[in-house]
Amino acid sequence: MPTPSDRPTTSELRRDPILRRWVIIAPEHASELAPRRIAADAAAPGQCPFCPGQEAMNPIEVARVGDGAGWAVRVTPDRHPLLRIEGELGRRAVGMFDYMNAVGAHELVIDTPDHACGWADFTPAHMACLLGVYRDRSRDLRRDPRFRHILVLMNRGAAWSRFSHAHSHVVATPFAMKRVEDEMAGAREYYRRKERCAFCDQLAEERHAGTRVVAEQPGFVALAPFASEHAYEVWVLPSAHAADFGRSEDDALAPLGTLLVDVVGRLRRVLDDVPYSVVLHTGPLDQPDSVDFHWHWEIVPLLGHELGIEWATGIYSNPVPPEAAADALRRAGTGPAR
Amino acid sequence: MPTPSDRPTTSELRRDPILRRWVIIAPEHASELAPRRIAADAAAPGQCPFCPGQEAMNPIEVARVGDGAGWAVRVTPDRHPLLRIEGELGRRAVGMFDYMNAVGAHELVIDTPDHACGWADFTPAHMACLLGVYRDRSRDLRRDPRFRHILVLMNRGAAWSRFSHAHSHVVATPFAMKRVEDEMAGAREYYRRKERCAFCDQLAEERHAGTRVVAEQPGFVALAPFASEHAYEVWVLPSAHAADFGRSEDDALAPLGTLLVDVVGRLRRVLDDVPYSVVLHTGPLDQPDSVDFHWHWEIVPLLGHELGIEWATGIYSNPVPPEAAADALRRAGTGPAR
Repeated sequence: MPTPSDRPTTSELRRDPILRRWVIIAPEHASELAPRRIAADAAAPGQCPFCPGQEAMNPIEVARVGDGAGWAVRVTPDRHPLLRIEGELGRRAVGMFDYMNAVGAHELVIDTPDHACGWADFTPAHMACLLGVYRDRSRDLRRDPRFRHILVLMNRGAAWSRFSHAHSHVVATPFAMKRVEDEMAGAREYYRRKERCAFCDQLAEERHAGTRVVAEQPGFVALAPFASEHAYEVWVLPSAHAADFGRSEDDALAPLGTLLVDVVGRLRRVLDDVPYSVVLHTGPLDQPDSVDFHWHWEIVPLLGHELGIEWATGIYSNPVPPEAAADALRRAGTGPAR
Repeated sequence: MPTPSDRPTTSELRRDPILRRWVIIAPEHASELAPRRIAADAAAPGQCPFCPGQEAMNPIEVARVGDGAGWAVRVTPDRHPLLRIEGELGRRAVGMFDYMNAVGAHELVIDTPDHACGWADFTPAHMACLLGVYRDRSRDLRRDPRFRHILVLMNRGAAWSRFSHAHSHVVATPFAMKRVEDEMAGAREYYRRKERCAFCDQLAEERHAGTRVVAEQPGFVALAPFASEHAYEVWVLPSAHAADFGRSEDDALAPLGTLLVDVVGRLRRVLDDVPYSVVLHTGPLDQPDSVDFHWHWEIVPLLGHELGIEWATGIYSNPVPPEAAADALRRAGTGPAR
């Protein structure tokens, strides 16, 4: 019979022996099981821990842009981290099973000092500044040899988001994330067959056809992917091959920022202030020159039409053809939101 | 510029060129985007389309157990099918992209005539009867050479469930589902290295350790998997190697039914009538004798603690160690629910 000592009391990583992916077993997060949905905060500006004047609530700064009270972006450690920064990987086996310590970095980025602004409200210059923070955190975190991969994630208006003030996450993991690893494996197979990047080929085909292109900026394209799993899913990619977002030059951040603000603004106009998630998929830290992977941002509105079987089966059913989504988003144009 | 003729008006399958999975592009289901959540029906017994006396609302029967008004289980075509039964696969390429027609079978199973009963309320004999229906539908559908895979799925109490009367789905697809394909690929690699089934090895190790075993019946084991992605996830597997659920003998259905009813009853007691999903993972129809895949049911309570990044990253964080889940479920015992 089990005794309590059979059970971890701090987080650990366990490798699924069938699916070959690492899962975080996180007993410290048990309080998240109740309530079942974390309510969005109703804090007035000034009581929000991310607003200017409340810096003492998140005192440790990993990075910031701007001085004193006039900051534009702040980065702090997350108060409820998925992975802990301290310690060794501690790879080990128990019987047939594989363990690692739940080591990694989990940083919280306060995207703006303005409590009421989302990405769609940002000036292109502010978005470029935020992208520069992500790039610089990626450059800094990769100096830690324990980390294999870096993720940037932003949720806007989602039911599970604890705070409404715009914020995002930079997570460095000691393993490749399954979804990105699946993309890398698919792109690698494509390259072996064709000796061309699968993303570059798609970009060429999409720009020729035009039907799934949403918008462009110099050096960047936004498109609704051919086999979009989610309605109104949009990807933003560099037009020229690049595996590592962390190598982006300063002068690329302005057009990329302009395009991201443009795309989330179009989604807001077409889908009536829908919640959405934005995720950066970038190549593994040890392969910045990969010929087969192509970094990109994935932007997915959270429309709640999922069948509830995606997690269990991998079957996705998307009721909005990407051509129709791209057409609606193109026609939503730019200009003042809503 | 796109014209409406660029857009499909009926469902089609598109293959993701990077992730190598088929996605259903389903414009017929566009109405599911609004409202964002389908409300559970509040129909009184007698107005429910699945109750005895309402058979005329779903007149076409694929199968039934029992005669006349005294039926125990009915199977009808789903009124909003994911995949259509008619037509050829129509595999084709347009440029670099791959298409198929959205062909398949999607059957709705009315699990019981009793409006108020869920799986946890079933007698073991009724559950064995329902399992026999799944097995027989699997045997019948595989005679169609277009189909590669069969899925059985039941959601109980989920927000997206349209009807509260217990029902389930049998879906036959012309492609292997990504999640099951990932399991098959992992199990195949394991077999190549060890010349043993990865599931059989896990079963042996779990039964020896005991800490993650929830319950047993002759020939079947219920366990909380070592690297459970979801809190209180439970798998039910045959103790002896078997790749194909469709080959189950009649005398195996009684202990399997007893164990499934037992497990969902324990989940109900421990988690206070939580919504849950049950999915059958069985091997591909053309490899019933596979030495590396092992069929199993996956039972996952829907606790809503997800981070919202699983879909985008493949990172799962589970706040309940499987040993703690198994211990709580073991102690929940059998006997009258709640």
